[in-house]
Amino acid sequence: MSAVRLPQQSQDFPAWYGQVVRRAGLAENSAVRGAMVIKPYGFAIWEAIQRALDDRIKATGHENVYFPVLVPESVLAQESELIEGFAPEVALVTRAGGKELDEPLAIRPTSEAMIWAAYGRWIESYRDLPLLYNQWANVVRWELRPRLLLRTSEFLWQEGHTAHETEDEAVAEVLTILHDVYADVVENVLAMPVLRGRKSASERFPGAVETYTLEALMRDGKALQAATSHYLGQGFARAFGVTFTDRDGSEQHPYATSWGASTRLVGGVVMAHGDDAGLRLPPAVAPHQVVIVPIVREADRARVLAAAGALADDLRDAGVRVRLDDREEHRPGFKFHEWELKGAPCRVEIGARDLAAGTLTVARRDTGAKATVALGALAAELPALLTDIQAAMLAGARAEQERRTAFPGTYAEMVACLREAGGFARAGWCGGEECEARVKADSAATIRCLPLGQSPAVSDASDRCIVCGRSSEAVAVWAQAY
Amino acid sequence: MSAVRLPQQSQDFPAWYGQVVRRAGLAENSAVRGAMVIKPYGFAIWEAIQRALDDRIKATGHENVYFPVLVPESVLAQESELIEGFAPEVALVTRAGGKELDEPLAIRPTSEAMIWAAYGRWIESYRDLPLLYNQWANVVRWELRPRLLLRTSEFLWQEGHTAHETEDEAVAEVLTILHDVYADVVENVLAMPVLRGRKSASERFPGAVETYTLEALMRDGKALQAATSHYLGQGFARAFGVTFTDRDGSEQHPYATSWGASTRLVGGVVMAHGDDAGLRLPPAVAPHQVVIVPIVREADRARVLAAAGALADDLRDAGVRVRLDDREEHRPGFKFHEWELKGAPCRVEIGARDLAAGTLTVARRDTGAKATVALGALAAELPALLTDIQAAMLAGARAEQERRTAFPGTYAEMVACLREAGGFARAGWCGGEECEARVKADSAATIRCLPLGQSPAVSDASDRCIVCGRSSEAVAVWAQAY
Repeated sequence: MSAVRLPQQSQDFPAWYGQVVRRAGLAENSAVRGAMVIKPYGFAIWEAIQRALDDRIKATGHENVYFPVLVPESVLAQESELIEGFAPEVALVTRAGGKELDEPLAIRPTSEAMIWAAYGRWIESYRDLPLLYNQWANVVRWELRPRLLLRTSEFLWQEGHTAHETEDEAVAEVLTILHDVYADVVENVLAMPVLRGRKSASERFPGAVETYTLEALMRDGKALQAATSHYLGQGFARAFGVTFTDRDGSEQHPYATSWGASTRLVGGVVMAHGDDAGLRLPPAVAPHQVVIVPIVREADRARVLAAAGALADDLRDAGVRVRLDDREEHRPGFKFHEWELKGAPCRVEIGARDLAAGTLTVARRDTGAKATVALGALAAELPALLTDIQAAMLAGARAEQERRTAFPGTYAEMVACLREAGGFARAGWCGGEECEARVKADSAATIRCLPLGQSPAVSDASDRCIVCGRSSEAVAVWAQAY
Repeated sequence: MSAVRLPQQSQDFPAWYGQVVRRAGLAENSAVRGAMVIKPYGFAIWEAIQRALDDRIKATGHENVYFPVLVPESVLAQESELIEGFAPEVALVTRAGGKELDEPLAIRPTSEAMIWAAYGRWIESYRDLPLLYNQWANVVRWELRPRLLLRTSEFLWQEGHTAHETEDEAVAEVLTILHDVYADVVENVLAMPVLRGRKSASERFPGAVETYTLEALMRDGKALQAATSHYLGQGFARAFGVTFTDRDGSEQHPYATSWGASTRLVGGVVMAHGDDAGLRLPPAVAPHQVVIVPIVREADRARVLAAAGALADDLRDAGVRVRLDDREEHRPGFKFHEWELKGAPCRVEIGARDLAAGTLTVARRDTGAKATVALGALAAELPALLTDIQAAMLAGARAEQERRTAFPGTYAEMVACLREAGGFARAGWCGGEECEARVKADSAATIRCLPLGQSPAVSDASDRCIVCGRSSEAVAVWAQAY
């Protein structure tokens, strides 16, 4: 932990991000280009995200499974859009057990192929449906421009793969995952407000009929795709020859979905909440929700440490994740700095003077505000304070997202806005790929989503495509993105 | 679920095992030789094992991390014993992102190399020690004779990797993991009694100074290595050039440990407890601890199903994992059979007659015993019954292990015993590799361990090597093994 200041967010966001990720101990590069080491503090955040997702995945009726990491190239190639989409990023095993393999094995870039090959064995009748399965796994997608946590050659994720009797049921599944699993976790656990919407055809998952997405806004004004949920229609079932006997005795192809969320969410938390002093972690994912820093002088060391230890125990009993930072080799000022950088939501200082007064100072990381609390009341008050911080962080990020959402009236205004101010721009779109491509060429922005059922407060011009002026097919939200 | 009987354990144990694993829905083969699909029921057992291990790994002060799955061949080769030991099993990526790679990348067979390369960056001073890290990961070891769950080309595991200031501390770590993490989980969660001991030199992990192991006995009389904990000395630190500044200012190499437990434990549960009717799951890892089977006739369907649903809710509220099997397409007899095969610890039948009488029949899977319990008392009584089943299964397996432990007086007796009866044979050993090799040649048995601090009730001849008659260096436990 060096005392050198972080780069300022407003001056150099990428440098700020890279340094926060490394200095806060989240992740670092490895000997393999683009493949990261996730360090203990970063992994603890990921574990909190995993638990939140896994609880909801199970609560919505899904079970966990595990499929092999290696996929024969011929199996991967069975669905043509999938292999076209992923071929450039695939890593291939050609030797194993001291021999050349007869057929190269791909390290899974995603598991639709391997899983639908198995579903062919598992599905015979409508009684076998739905299959509602999820797996936690590593995947490899070779990255030419890697960035820690956001775009890495290997990442960790969950991938859900379901099979259904009807299209309606499959579409309902895709939306349940989007709303009840992903949006609930990203908004209420990670405190990141999201736009929920469909992707345009050009941004769909390879092989998907429809891709639904959650789009969050980072503090540099760029969007981050937080999770996606795909309706795959019957394409995978056809490609893998999967049929079932329907209620009327006819042979049908089941309808498929797949959906994933990954370790990039940890990077999202950094960029959605961090400030010039470092991370700001929402209490729901903070490895340490409260850090206690004892202020000791030689004369009162034992007494202060005992009181700090007792306080830590009380907080633990109250269900708070607490860290007592009693390291002797560092001074309190150093520790304050470090826990600011690491984004601990609350810091409590405790010294002889506090003990004499019977009060403690609690500092909030999100606002920097300090409050004085009676020593005996802290354990009772902290859970409510953490809830308050969690809510304030979501509200703050939501206000920021609203502030940075533009409703341009003209194409020139939109391009200027996307290039200079960043943030989201909402406007009508004719549905044409040419218009989509033109915006990208002019502003480096893509359609992040076509928002779902949120009555869009767009400009009066939203019934016209902001690019070509023809009548619009949908409201689109554009932004530069990670 | 077919009504065809399982092969008898006593007639053909391997066939019995394979069918139980497949028909109970634990795992199946995939398109890649030796790489298995872990199905929902099998994965739920693994998740229970993971939780039990992870809780104890954290309670003993360790944090989780994640290191890349791909290891440059040169990094893997840096520790010579490690690469020698694993080279024949390694899978190599030679192409990625559409290009031949300059250097092949191994899929990790284990992560010592990748992790010690990183520890070199993380360790500077004694203040940085100990490092107490663990990861949950998949590993690939090419298997020529794969067997589902027991020996697979890819498996899931946790691998702990720690670095310490002193040898004493590292050795203490290895034993803490052996006793407080692994033995506690294997005995008290999986109900599998284990021998705790050291491996002989020939059975040590490549690069280890000492390998500690837990050895459990399967119902065919073969041993299963349930988990291992390695003291690695300073070899890895030297190979990777890792040093720290000691308290006296000198540069030292830290002392290393590593330890792992894998999905083979699921196979162990099958083979340690299963019988001719299928699995018998200890309640602590059973996905469904109690299965309720409603017995309905048309006239009372609604009333019986409502009562069954209410009972399930009561049991859930009492903290019991319960499954209400209200499938309409199957008759009760079919369900009884299926849940026997799947090893659910308790089955409760509920029909109109039971409701009228106000009592229910509870059947135990472990003993087959049935008991009558008042409907209103079941939720209160079940947790104690489950505890009882868990204890009875451990006691039963322990009695079986004792019964199948021989104390041969002569070499001929030992060989006969190992070849014919199976089980463990305890006897003195001179420490010579020739004697170890001779036993293996004559009986296909290996030294499973040199038991730790368990005052061994061996035969009078234990002060002599049972093979060569020279004075013995240790008591050894021999067995055929998985």
